[in-house]
Amino acid sequence: MTASRRLRVVIVGAGFSGVGAARTLADSPVEVLLLDRNNYHAFSPLFHQVATGELEPEQIAYPVRGILRKLSNVQFVMAEVKQVNLTKQVVEIDEAKSVAPRGSLRADWYACGPPAGNVLENVDQSLICYDFLILSVGSTSRFFGVPGAVEHTFPLKTLQQAVLLRNHVFDCFERAAHEPDAKRRQQLLTFAIVGGGPTGVEVAGAQAELIYRSLVQDYPTLDFRQVRVLLLQGADSLLPTFPQKLQAYTHKQLRRLGVEVYLQAKVSQVTKESVTLRDGRSFDTKTVVWTAGVYGNPQAEAWGLPTVGSGKVLVSSTLQVPGYSNTYVAGDLAALGSEGNFLPMLAPVAIQQGQAVARNILRQIKGRNPLPFRYRHQGSMVIIGRHAAVAHLGKLSLTGFPAWLLWLGVHLVALVGVRNRLMVMISWIWSYLFRDRFVRLILPPAIRASAPTHSIAPQQRSE
Amino acid sequence: MTASRRLRVVIVGAGFSGVGAARTLADSPVEVLLLDRNNYHAFSPLFHQVATGELEPEQIAYPVRGILRKLSNVQFVMAEVKQVNLTKQVVEIDEAKSVAPRGSLRADWYACGPPAGNVLENVDQSLICYDFLILSVGSTSRFFGVPGAVEHTFPLKTLQQAVLLRNHVFDCFERAAHEPDAKRRQQLLTFAIVGGGPTGVEVAGAQAELIYRSLVQDYPTLDFRQVRVLLLQGADSLLPTFPQKLQAYTHKQLRRLGVEVYLQAKVSQVTKESVTLRDGRSFDTKTVVWTAGVYGNPQAEAWGLPTVGSGKVLVSSTLQVPGYSNTYVAGDLAALGSEGNFLPMLAPVAIQQGQAVARNILRQIKGRNPLPFRYRHQGSMVIIGRHAAVAHLGKLSLTGFPAWLLWLGVHLVALVGVRNRLMVMISWIWSYLFRDRFVRLILPPAIRASAPTHSIAPQQRSE
Repeated sequence: MTASRRLRVVIVGAGFSGVGAARTLADSPVEVLLLDRNNYHAFSPLFHQVATGELEPEQIAYPVRGILRKLSNVQFVMAEVKQVNLTKQVVEIDEAKSVAPRGSLRADWYACGPPAGNVLENVDQSLICYDFLILSVGSTSRFFGVPGAVEHTFPLKTLQQAVLLRNHVFDCFERAAHEPDAKRRQQLLTFAIVGGGPTGVEVAGAQAELIYRSLVQDYPTLDFRQVRVLLLQGADSLLPTFPQKLQAYTHKQLRRLGVEVYLQAKVSQVTKESVTLRDGRSFDTKTVVWTAGVYGNPQAEAWGLPTVGSGKVLVSSTLQVPGYSNTYVAGDLAALGSEGNFLPMLAPVAIQQGQAVARNILRQIKGRNPLPFRYRHQGSMVIIGRHAAVAHLGKLSLTGFPAWLLWLGVHLVALVGVRNRLMVMISWIWSYLFRDRFVRLILPPAIRASAPTHSIAPQQRSE
Repeated sequence: MTASRRLRVVIVGAGFSGVGAARTLADSPVEVLLLDRNNYHAFSPLFHQVATGELEPEQIAYPVRGILRKLSNVQFVMAEVKQVNLTKQVVEIDEAKSVAPRGSLRADWYACGPPAGNVLENVDQSLICYDFLILSVGSTSRFFGVPGAVEHTFPLKTLQQAVLLRNHVFDCFERAAHEPDAKRRQQLLTFAIVGGGPTGVEVAGAQAELIYRSLVQDYPTLDFRQVRVLLLQGADSLLPTFPQKLQAYTHKQLRRLGVEVYLQAKVSQVTKESVTLRDGRSFDTKTVVWTAGVYGNPQAEAWGLPTVGSGKVLVSSTLQVPGYSNTYVAGDLAALGSEGNFLPMLAPVAIQQGQAVARNILRQIKGRNPLPFRYRHQGSMVIIGRHAAVAHLGKLSLTGFPAWLLWLGVHLVALVGVRNRLMVMISWIWSYLFRDRFVRLILPPAIRASAPTHSIAPQQRSE
């Protein structure tokens, strides 16, 4: 590091923790570079409502550059990271998957030594140098080696996956509506959700409401008694981290909505046609939603970071990578605590950790010691359906209408962007008033992306 | 035809005319089958606002089944048509591109003869029989044989194309922001729109507002004097069908917004890197939007229908195909009048024709003669930008604020679905108040659709 330039902080990932860190570093005496493969920050707690046609994907996505507009010391590059070298303090961008070409930043981001002015010659321009690094790349789905799970299930970890699932469900109904074979129709109308944690419960409830309240009006010729929404939970209860009373309530509410809940139902295999449990039971289905497990990030290991079994990065209490005092991990990727007892992978944890690592970096710059991270838990909430949710807030347990209203309110406030909030609120009110789902669109129809322009298209004005 | 069953009307295409026809046939003594390759009806007059980040694609798409909910005698099949046999009265579905499997409809739709009950054996189930056929497949882009135009331009005839253009424009800016080479940066920041008709004008104006009012805030390091929005019009004036006064106004307003208007600028070639005019001038660009021409539909000719040079189907004054009194064409595909003097390809024409052919079919069933189609022209309008539009309503010509307000009002009312209207209205108000565009999302990033799930992703709650 040289005294002649401002210190550089590279943040990898613009999720809750990455954005939290960037905001905290705003207007401080550092140069910040935020990297993400998408140009938007997505609000993952509402993915299940995109997947079930309640919300439009754009309503819960916010352009990263929009967030950074007022943060003059934060730059953004849409890029995927290929490699991280903690010793050389270098992040290597995967140029094949990124928009940033070589030499895209000011020269001193590449000059990994004394500042070299603007001379870019003899400098590897795919390497970005940093003084501090924040890794906040989030988590991915964990498939526990179940055969076929990677290939044939629908995870719900990205906004794109939510749209894919939505399109797929509507496609299944379109096919079922014209499927003369009863067995194949049954298969198309069976929807299995693997995992009885918060996401699994939320997807199952939303799916059931979509089907039995909205789609039932679209397909008058289909027999909706054939439709099955299965929630396959490996453990003995739904929402294992919640009080027993809330678990029972959740179970009851899901059944009321028409969801078949299977406990101790461990999935042993998934194929294109079915999902099979360890006890031999099998369900013919074209739709297996995978919410059963999360994995820190396979890349972290490839980058040589110390990981635990679940792919998370082991960090000190200050969220630093042991041995590298200038390298922080925040959000889902951080393994803080002891194995099996890590902090939950919740948005509030990620946001607080992002802010904490940023503050720790600012402390280090001032010559102070970084502080241990302390999570202020505000509670956990799960929405099940109309007027149905559970909230576990310390000693307080809420169910039903108050929990449901609280869930909506908390998520509305947490959304980034006033316009997004307004749009989501209107979508919710509309769905509520009309007991319907309105984004019943197969858009874009991924399968037919290469369809010729001359096929059936809606009319448009000519010139 | 036999007296024992209701007559069957097949409508191909759920655009303005197809939906107009289906609605008119509701509750009449016929069975209607509506075919479209998408499960939604898209409102094409607002495609340019999707392409420029003002509206979300879902806001102007409406599920076809939602439109049909109250029409008990109308069925929908999401399918692409492969062949039409007017003599045998059969529509052949392209099974590879359609969700409807063989035998998907009730047996009598396949039994092209006396009703065969529900026996589907010995019947070709990809063939759908009709008593009356309405072809309303719309129009496609016409490239006039310009080399490279098919491969390298962005047409704006489908909702998907609008989203593709939006994503591409934002991608260009992301790349430009980090492009050290001034020439390549200039190329990324040059946006050419080919065609000075209504769509070309609307795209150019919206593009300029997006760039100079909204994106300028996202890219503080870019020099926006480098940005060029080119409108390349082959004719001597913009909006050739409008009065000269409105043409001059449009020209002036576009220039005020920063659009460079080129008249008598006929495109001779498009490559991945540039667009070249017949007079030899060339512009380096990655973005060529093609609004210069429309073609009826190449399929119509393949189906053996009598077409004119522009790919439209020649119809009688009653919109019937000559020689086939039970076959109608409505909307952009219909060539009514004399070559060079066809009715304009406007939504109102399509809607009115859809209704007219439906009424003519009902007349035929009652033993009456079909009536000639009479177009009630209500006027033409083009939006240019904030407080800027032109409206040509008979002898009345409006510009500026009143025309702009009228344009917004008319398009808002014409949208299908109250929720869509509300969402679009709020989007407009929001854009207006904040002088910004809010859907600045590269979503889904088409290029990276196959990206592994373990790459940088926003954090999400775990189970």
